[in-house]
Amino acid sequence: MIDPRPVVLLTDFGEEDGYVGIMKGVIHQIAPHTPTIDLSHFVPPQDVLAGSMTLQRSVDYFAPGSIFVCVVDPGVGTERRSIAAQIGERFFIGPDNGLITLWLNEAVKRHESIEIVELDRPQYWLESLSKSFHGRDVYAPTGAHLSAGLELSELGTVINDPVLLDVPQPKPTNHGWEGQILHIDHFGNLATNIKRKHLIAFSPDISNGIPNVRVRYGEYTIQGISTTFGESIPGNLVAIIDSADFLSLAVVNDNAQEYLKAEIGDTVRVIASNLMNIE
Amino acid sequence: MIDPRPVVLLTDFGEEDGYVGIMKGVIHQIAPHTPTIDLSHFVPPQDVLAGSMTLQRSVDYFAPGSIFVCVVDPGVGTERRSIAAQIGERFFIGPDNGLITLWLNEAVKRHESIEIVELDRPQYWLESLSKSFHGRDVYAPTGAHLSAGLELSELGTVINDPVLLDVPQPKPTNHGWEGQILHIDHFGNLATNIKRKHLIAFSPDISNGIPNVRVRYGEYTIQGISTTFGESIPGNLVAIIDSADFLSLAVVNDNAQEYLKAEIGDTVRVIASNLMNIE
Amino acid sequence: MIDPRPVVLLTDFGEEDGYVGIMKGVIHQIAPHTPTIDLSHFVPPQDVLAGSMTLQRSVDYFAPGSIFVCVVDPGVGTERRSIAAQIGERFFIGPDNGLITLWLNEAVKRHESIEIVELDRPQYWLESLSKSFHGRDVYAPTGAHLSAGLELSELGTVINDPVLLDVPQPKPTNHGWEGQILHIDHFGNLATNIKRKHLIAFSPDISNGIPNVRVRYGEYTIQGISTTFGESIPGNLVAIIDSADFLSLAVVNDNAQEYLKAEIGDTVRVIASNLMNIE
Repeated sequence: MIDPRPVVLLTDFGEEDGYVGIMKGVIHQIAPHTPTIDLSHFVPPQDVLAGSMTLQRSVDYFAPGSIFVCVVDPGVGTERRSIAAQIGERFFIGPDNGLITLWLNEAVKRHESIEIVELDRPQYWLESLSKSFHGRDVYAPTGAHLSAGLELSELGTVINDPVLLDVPQPKPTNHGWEGQILHIDHFGNLATNIKRKHLIAFSPDISNGIPNVRVRYGEYTIQGISTTFGESIPGNLVAIIDSADFLSLAVVNDNAQEYLKAEIGDTVRVIASNLMNIE
Repeated sequence: MIDPRPVVLLTDFGEEDGYVGIMKGVIHQIAPHTPTIDLSHFVPPQDVLAGSMTLQRSVDYFAPGSIFVCVVDPGVGTERRSIAAQIGERFFIGPDNGLITLWLNEAVKRHESIEIVELDRPQYWLESLSKSFHGRDVYAPTGAHLSAGLELSELGTVINDPVLLDVPQPKPTNHGWEGQILHIDHFGNLATNIKRKHLIAFSPDISNGIPNVRVRYGEYTIQGISTTFGESIPGNLVAIIDSADFLSLAVVNDNAQEYLKAEIGDTVRVIASNLMNIE
Repeated sequence: MIDPRPVVLLTDFGEEDGYVGIMKGVIHQIAPHTPTIDLSHFVPPQDVLAGSMTLQRSVDYFAPGSIFVCVVDPGVGTERRSIAAQIGERFFIGPDNGLITLWLNEAVKRHESIEIVELDRPQYWLESLSKSFHGRDVYAPTGAHLSAGLELSELGTVINDPVLLDVPQPKPTNHGWEGQILHIDHFGNLATNIKRKHLIAFSPDISNGIPNVRVRYGEYTIQGISTTFGESIPGNLVAIIDSADFLSLAVVNDNAQEYLKAEIGDTVRVIASNLMNIE
């Protein structure tokens, strides 16, 4: 017997009400041997961009064939479409509201194959379709059927116009880059939208850090980008390239969000001490 | 080999202390192939009624044979009994304090078979029985043995007098119904104890909403009951029938609890604009 | 086929960012049939002692062969070592920072065999090693390989000098014991470092409680140690021996932390009414 494809769950449901457990019950009932893995259920409510970022940072670490059932769904009950997609070797199921944007952008850069269908075949959903809990009634059963061996093309009709988010991009400046804080994690680390690739021009060997830049946030200036928290003294504010390749601000062994009173959307600048050619 | 029955866990333990993980360790040690599914571990501490509601909204979505191990147990260490029950095609294990009330009421209406035993056979528990953690020492091992194939009747002695909660019921008024907020979810949606069935008399086709009523909460009046969040504008206060068939107040894409400063127990009224016969 | 060893996860990652899900993705990709069990992901950030306590209270409830992958890692990215250990019949994988201290102390008392290796074989890690997420890049893959059948000795080079924490011990006084609050749980119960064994001298049959002592916390005095919450009236402050054998302060069906404004490190005294020989 071939192992069923794992189902990975990403939602903004929280864990207190049993909504996620119910989705797992639905999956288990249709596909009893399908493993389910929780990615996160604490996407900020209705924050599709935040969900898209968590998804993009994570997909590569799951086995080919994995099915990401994602429900951050401010439009539930409206005319918004539901989709399933194969992106490279993995699958997405969820509302057509842009959740796949960052993953899709990455896949396009890598020239991966992409196929998207609109979920329009109610035979793969629960019979009693509610208008407010499609995670339970549409996405969980669809994921279970896909895990159990159904083909993507059987789930619905091909579309070519998925909804995509307008993602804030860092801008080149005369002296470097201007970006924004896009994610604040459990430790209070502040991830920006400035990526490793934007910083390569500053230093020949970025894996040893970038000493010749300053990073500015509000009134704070950090000299140099470190490669690790461990280079600095606990309590110090540092700039690092994080484990997902984003420039991040952190306080060593403490909480940068609390220390800086930082918020999503705040501006972060990288300024070359010794400007070279920036791609 | 027949698949072992899944064990579904519902507690008020939270997830920070490892209590739930320990229960899973105990289950895994006795029944290594039993799948466990978390329903919720964030029932408000010692709130048996809240646990009973989460359970009732969820049971139908799990496969026949599923075993719900439920621990909301303000009486742990007292003389309160422990029980296992078969209710229709599924099982309950936990303290005899009314957690099964709403599920049982539903099962009685559906004429499902019900059998309840008191857990009085220590050979199915852990040897070192504590007086404060029966989830670990009694309910997890009992659930594991039941999953692995033991019969309900082997777990204890039949009883016919389970403890039942006194559940607040909505009351008919001259002009409609008066109910209470009984559950507030992760999104701040406010579920009342007024059900779909109470509202059928107001409209011939309830699946398209109920335009001819007003819903009152404190100083707020909502005209009509919608079928979905999506019918209204983000930020609007709406009344809907939720995915578990309860009348709920919600703010579209926002948090009704915060907006209304609502609390469990608050009164909600449904008033007919054009009163017809109410069952 | 032999069942793969289960992997038990203990971290301070929280559950909102997907970090734990990513670790499970890595494990699943290497060892698709390995069951994973969450012990807790809410160890207070960087609090190695708190992680060590959760681990020690839990290990015995998991099957022999279980692999505890533990990541509370304030030193990530520094020169701190990574280790794997076999302690008795179970395994530990994580940073060499003292997380195993309390488990190891217990194992030494029980004369269990102990073997520790430094993880120095990158062939068992992910290829792209970050400097800030060794849970993903080192510990998850190492745990997966160990689960799938690799020997401990293949993971690295034997060491004999693991880092150990300096754990606060209760002190004997002229009239009993002076200890500290070391853990506050989800219910607000306050566990001290005074154990059952410290209290045996006070009473011939401790399982029925210890009436002849007073327990003091700040201005509060509790007469006698109960065996269970259930002996007292809801709302009362009581002292009990908890399910992990520690002296704990609790408010029956309420939250002692909130009631007492208690904090980790606060002093708790046990004073004999009738002093006998204390070991």
